[in-house]
Amino acid sequence: MMDDDLEDGNLGLRTRTFPSMRSKTYVPLVFRILMGINVRVLFVLLLLCFGAIFYIGASTSPIIVFVFSLCIASFLLSIYLTKWVLSKDEGPPEMVQISEAIRDGAEGFFRTQYGTISKMALFLSVVILCIYLFRSTTPQQEASGLGRATSAYITVASFLLGAICSGVAGYVGMWVSVRANVRVSSAARRSAREALQIAVRAGGFSALVVVGMAVMGVAILYSTFYVFLGVDTPGSMKVTDLPLLLVGYGFGASFVALFAQLGGGIYTKAADVGADLVGKIEQGIPEDDPRNPAVIADLVGDNVGDCAARGADLFESIAAEIISAMILGGTMARRCKIEDPSGFILFPLVVHSFDLVISSVGILSIRGTREPGAKSPIEDPMAILQKGYSITIFLAIITFGASTRWLLYTEQAPSAWLNFALCGLVGIITAYAFVWITQYYTDYKHEPVRTLALSSSTGHGTNIIAGISLGLESTALPVLVISVSIISAFWLGRTSGLVDETGNPTGGLFGTAVATMGMLSTAAYVLTMDMFGPIADNAGGIVEMSQQPESVREITDILDAVGNTTKATTKGFAIGSAALASFLLFSAYMDEVAAFAQVSFEQVDIAIPEVFVGGLLGSMLIFLFSAWACAAVGRTAQEVVNEVRRQFIERPGIMDYSEKPDYGRCVAIVASASLREMIKPGALAIFTPIVVGFVFKLLGRLTGHPLLGAKVVASMLMFATVSGILMALFLNTAGGAWDNAKKYIETGALGGKGSDCHKAAITGDTVGDPFKDTAGPSLHVLIKMLATITLVMAPIFL
Amino acid sequence: MMDDDLEDGNLGLRTRTFPSMRSKTYVPLVFRILMGINVRVLFVLLLLCFGAIFYIGASTSPIIVFVFSLCIASFLLSIYLTKWVLSKDEGPPEMVQISEAIRDGAEGFFRTQYGTISKMALFLSVVILCIYLFRSTTPQQEASGLGRATSAYITVASFLLGAICSGVAGYVGMWVSVRANVRVSSAARRSAREALQIAVRAGGFSALVVVGMAVMGVAILYSTFYVFLGVDTPGSMKVTDLPLLLVGYGFGASFVALFAQLGGGIYTKAADVGADLVGKIEQGIPEDDPRNPAVIADLVGDNVGDCAARGADLFESIAAEIISAMILGGTMARRCKIEDPSGFILFPLVVHSFDLVISSVGILSIRGTREPGAKSPIEDPMAILQKGYSITIFLAIITFGASTRWLLYTEQAPSAWLNFALCGLVGIITAYAFVWITQYYTDYKHEPVRTLALSSSTGHGTNIIAGISLGLESTALPVLVISVSIISAFWLGRTSGLVDETGNPTGGLFGTAVATMGMLSTAAYVLTMDMFGPIADNAGGIVEMSQQPESVREITDILDAVGNTTKATTKGFAIGSAALASFLLFSAYMDEVAAFAQVSFEQVDIAIPEVFVGGLLGSMLIFLFSAWACAAVGRTAQEVVNEVRRQFIERPGIMDYSEKPDYGRCVAIVASASLREMIKPGALAIFTPIVVGFVFKLLGRLTGHPLLGAKVVASMLMFATVSGILMALFLNTAGGAWDNAKKYIETGALGGKGSDCHKAAITGDTVGDPFKDTAGPSLHVLIKMLATITLVMAPIFL
Repeated sequence: MMDDDLEDGNLGLRTRTFPSMRSKTYVPLVFRILMGINVRVLFVLLLLCFGAIFYIGASTSPIIVFVFSLCIASFLLSIYLTKWVLSKDEGPPEMVQISEAIRDGAEGFFRTQYGTISKMALFLSVVILCIYLFRSTTPQQEASGLGRATSAYITVASFLLGAICSGVAGYVGMWVSVRANVRVSSAARRSAREALQIAVRAGGFSALVVVGMAVMGVAILYSTFYVFLGVDTPGSMKVTDLPLLLVGYGFGASFVALFAQLGGGIYTKAADVGADLVGKIEQGIPEDDPRNPAVIADLVGDNVGDCAARGADLFESIAAEIISAMILGGTMARRCKIEDPSGFILFPLVVHSFDLVISSVGILSIRGTREPGAKSPIEDPMAILQKGYSITIFLAIITFGASTRWLLYTEQAPSAWLNFALCGLVGIITAYAFVWITQYYTDYKHEPVRTLALSSSTGHGTNIIAGISLGLESTALPVLVISVSIISAFWLGRTSGLVDETGNPTGGLFGTAVATMGMLSTAAYVLTMDMFGPIADNAGGIVEMSQQPESVREITDILDAVGNTTKATTKGFAIGSAALASFLLFSAYMDEVAAFAQVSFEQVDIAIPEVFVGGLLGSMLIFLFSAWACAAVGRTAQEVVNEVRRQFIERPGIMDYSEKPDYGRCVAIVASASLREMIKPGALAIFTPIVVGFVFKLLGRLTGHPLLGAKVVASMLMFATVSGILMALFLNTAGGAWDNAKKYIETGALGGKGSDCHKAAITGDTVGDPFKDTAGPSLHVLIKMLATITLVMAPIFL
Repeated sequence: MMDDDLEDGNLGLRTRTFPSMRSKTYVPLVFRILMGINVRVLFVLLLLCFGAIFYIGASTSPIIVFVFSLCIASFLLSIYLTKWVLSKDEGPPEMVQISEAIRDGAEGFFRTQYGTISKMALFLSVVILCIYLFRSTTPQQEASGLGRATSAYITVASFLLGAICSGVAGYVGMWVSVRANVRVSSAARRSAREALQIAVRAGGFSALVVVGMAVMGVAILYSTFYVFLGVDTPGSMKVTDLPLLLVGYGFGASFVALFAQLGGGIYTKAADVGADLVGKIEQGIPEDDPRNPAVIADLVGDNVGDCAARGADLFESIAAEIISAMILGGTMARRCKIEDPSGFILFPLVVHSFDLVISSVGILSIRGTREPGAKSPIEDPMAILQKGYSITIFLAIITFGASTRWLLYTEQAPSAWLNFALCGLVGIITAYAFVWITQYYTDYKHEPVRTLALSSSTGHGTNIIAGISLGLESTALPVLVISVSIISAFWLGRTSGLVDETGNPTGGLFGTAVATMGMLSTAAYVLTMDMFGPIADNAGGIVEMSQQPESVREITDILDAVGNTTKATTKGFAIGSAALASFLLFSAYMDEVAAFAQVSFEQVDIAIPEVFVGGLLGSMLIFLFSAWACAAVGRTAQEVVNEVRRQFIERPGIMDYSEKPDYGRCVAIVASASLREMIKPGALAIFTPIVVGFVFKLLGRLTGHPLLGAKVVASMLMFATVSGILMALFLNTAGGAWDNAKKYIETGALGGKGSDCHKAAITGDTVGDPFKDTAGPSLHVLIKMLATITLVMAPIFL
């Protein structure tokens, strides 16, 4: 929270400066300890640590060493990027002061939020420990020396590591964005291109750290377990069963990401909606005007909601996808009796290591100076970002092909690698199609948003009806694309020539997994583009608040608009990969249940009433979760509206700059409300599958159905995934379209700013805010968290 | 459409009268032919017809004779009710003129709409004929003499009969409502109680005809097929297989109901939204003001949207539910080798025959004179309706128990009838719970609507966010109720003691079917309460337009408000029974496929990628259908808004009554637009399952999966059902809550009429209109149409 000294100052008529807004700098405990140690000691420790990691990696597989090397190289590059960003100037003192106020608000919220989350994570880890200590073990596990205690500690350790890494991913995203924002504003005074470059490199820093950490975490866990459990030595567990032990990591990551996204999403949109409703509509002052008491809270929200939460979200996406693909690779290798299965298991790690390299090339391709021959005074930043993306995609196709040839070549099926390379291509094309569809429905260059804008001319009501119809309709094409890609990747995998003992083709699911990897093979670059958005948005806010000339605001406005588009496309991307990853984790869940129950579990039959009811409950979970997420924003926004109205009434001098608004109070209100509001939907998401599984397990025992609990949970998971994908697509697209319909009208169309049409469009934008930035992205995480929680909690359902 | 002579008149300052608005009376062809025949000849023909029906019924089963007798008795009662209603006076000439304009508009639209629908139905029947003539037949069918041609003609005949009956059900609903509306207005000048009684009896007339026709139609088809095919004679088909031949009837009914609901729903809400947006918000004139050019279109909409469409909808609900229960009863009787299975098969017909009797008692219990001792000047009409409902429910429990003892008693399991009676009780309780939950979420006496109203005080945006959250949240309790009732009814059925040859309990699904019947056992009374709403609404409109004194308007306002609540509860009721009926039809589909494919088909395994994709597509269908239905209303409403704005500009005299608005033009615009707009969503609903099934059948042949098409369609059906239930609950409840939040504010709360809060609430109401009266109710029908279309089209998927 912000200190009261925020209060004491005097804004003064056109003084344009703020008194110091700082409270105290916040540095997380881990960093404080590290900084307390002598640098040389630290260096030696770091070297020793790396040595140990490399030693363990080398004892596992040369592929792991390769992965480690690329990850460490990319960490070094990310350190270079952050040094480069931090070396830029922070501009005049008024900018610095605003930026410091934002930083304090963001770090204060982060501290409290992650304090709450870590308490919940610790509680959950105790629960997991108890469950695993009292569960039954399979004969295979007993034979391989993986007793109850070992598997309990392994699961809890991976859960906690996943949770910590997810937290760090969030912190890194926020850390760099609250530092880069002011530097982008400052650079915008000089050159659009430089501002763009700073924002991209800052985004690139956190993207490389997030993706690198996901890969590194899984690789370290994998090789540690490999060495620790003596895998592949006689009497021990097989390497093909190893990936299943990593599931806790994915669950930890998604657990933290869910609360980070919920808390951050509620924060950012409650502040935004509250600020807009009073500031823009009632008082008629522009966005990010320093007279609006909720403006600092709004800018803080961009950092905690978009940067921190999206960092945790993407971290979790990649971790879940790597683990599920490793599990499927292991299962397939075991069934096909492939001699050296490590290639199939470690393939996802290699793909994402290459992702780090090619995305770095893409990020560095965006240069600060203009190419010779460029003519327009301000270039289209979207074109520059797209060019970098094209380079990255091109390199991705090459490295993906090379990786399949290197790791997926097996003599049993010499052409299998080619099929899998094609699966990867399917994934890359799917990603492209998703980006294109999202742009079609949310960009005002195209028909849908223009029709939506036109519907605003007949009033608030028709605007909302049109927006909701647009959102509902926009689910169709992505579903068709994902359907075609699931079926074609499955078919390519099936016909790869890999067969099990009885001659059945087995590569189908792995083909789907490879397609998912193809889709995510440029994840670091996509995340960079995504992070770029809130940094540019924040920079625009700082420019507006410090009352820079119109020309500077123009530059940040353009960057902000591009940020809106990239944000929308990343969401399409995230939801597509969530759909695929969830489908993969579902298969892993069925394997896991079969292993424990000692019964074949290959079917989830929705013709059984209880299983059908499980599906009903799964879909209901999505509706209820979305309801609570949206309602939380609505309630918090109402608190902000009342506070801002109160301040305008009690301090009439605010409007003519003679009195200073109380920013700190709005920040405090939003922070405490969003922490309170994130608990209910989060708890719903975690407890529903556990309770449903447990209740139906008991019901199954009563009625003589042995696997009823597990089956009902499986059906719940599938229905929740399907409904969740559709609901998230609806919410994201409707929100994005409303936002851009408003922006289209603001360009002067249909009466332009201030017209009745514009007011109706602002209503749509307000409704879209919690859709696209709270409920929608939380659903991405929810889908994957459901998949991992069912895997980890499977012992309860049996 | 209306004649131009509407134009010629002169409204005159406060003259309060209209010139004649009539064009020509429209009487459907069938009635015109009947009226052309001599009355005595007609009477003899009718007697002969009844005689034939009774003869066929008697050759089938005494139960059928019983059913026929009750149906004919209730038809006679309905004739008495309509004579009673028509004997009431139509009030002063200005009322009559308005009523005639409404009648012409409604009948004109009905004629055109059903003309279009009947052409589509004829086309579809040719398609069905071709499919059945070229499909393969099962050995059992060949053995029982049911060749291709016979089964083709039987299916097409039932389809056409179902379609015709559904159309008649719609016409009857509209016919009585356009005649009762003016009589209710007239009676409202004298007594609230008399007005209520007229509206209830008019509603009761169409409810008895609709339910009676559904029962009678199925019974006639059943006994005709029984006699015609020589069922149960050696070498013929078994009686337990007979109900499957009736599926075409259900499909025909739902096909017509879907387009009736879509066209009518788009009509009523486009006119309503368009009239409100300009009249109420822009011009500030009251609802149903004669100066609003769209007011006649709005009143016509109540009749074609609410009366005609709801008649077709409920007809289809009951027909689908009877047929699916008969199929399941037959299947169970065959498996358990019950000696006389006719009790199990004909049980649903008896339950609904009793429904006619007990609902009549309920309807007649609402008397025109007040009970002695009543004190308040205007009684609460809701209390009177509730009292009638309580009487009906009480009688339902008794007759349901008696029917189970009479028909479901079998010596193989002497206590089975008791279990099934309990299943019926589960259904009745479920219906009660649904009514209660809907009232909780949509009545402003309770917390949710009050919170929604409060959220209007912070603007349009927060109102919409809160309403959407409320709607999404309101799905949870109904889903829990339906889950508990499915599982408990299934369990009661399973433990009934009925077992198949191998000793497996088989009564589970039939238990669920009995619960559905319990839920629908008071359908006629519920439909009466539902029909009451639009009649009261229309009466209010006529009172307002003919500028009656405030006290008269007050009475119709109260009736209208009660109508809103009963309409909302009927929707909860309809969606609950749709969920159950769809689940039953799903089992019938699996049996049908198994019979044709000669392979056991007992599982729909969503772990197969193609089947999962089918589920994705099914859920997507719901989203896309809702999108198109809402968008259709939005687009049509925009046309109305532009037309009304144009009239207000071009005829400035409208506002001071010196110039007459052109009502006919609005009616024509809405009518043609809604006919055009109903095609797209309707075609989507019909072609998606056919195309998906066919494509995956081909894919299955290519990849060596024999039943792939059938499985994918099954999964599509289940996912569509689940998503459809949730989406319909969301749309209905959100719409109802917005409507009542507005009404709550209009009672004077939070600033009352004309405040900013009220304006925000009107926006919510406008958004809710297409939700609750177009997309929501269309989804009820869609769910059941999907279930029947998959059954009828099953040969394509194999």
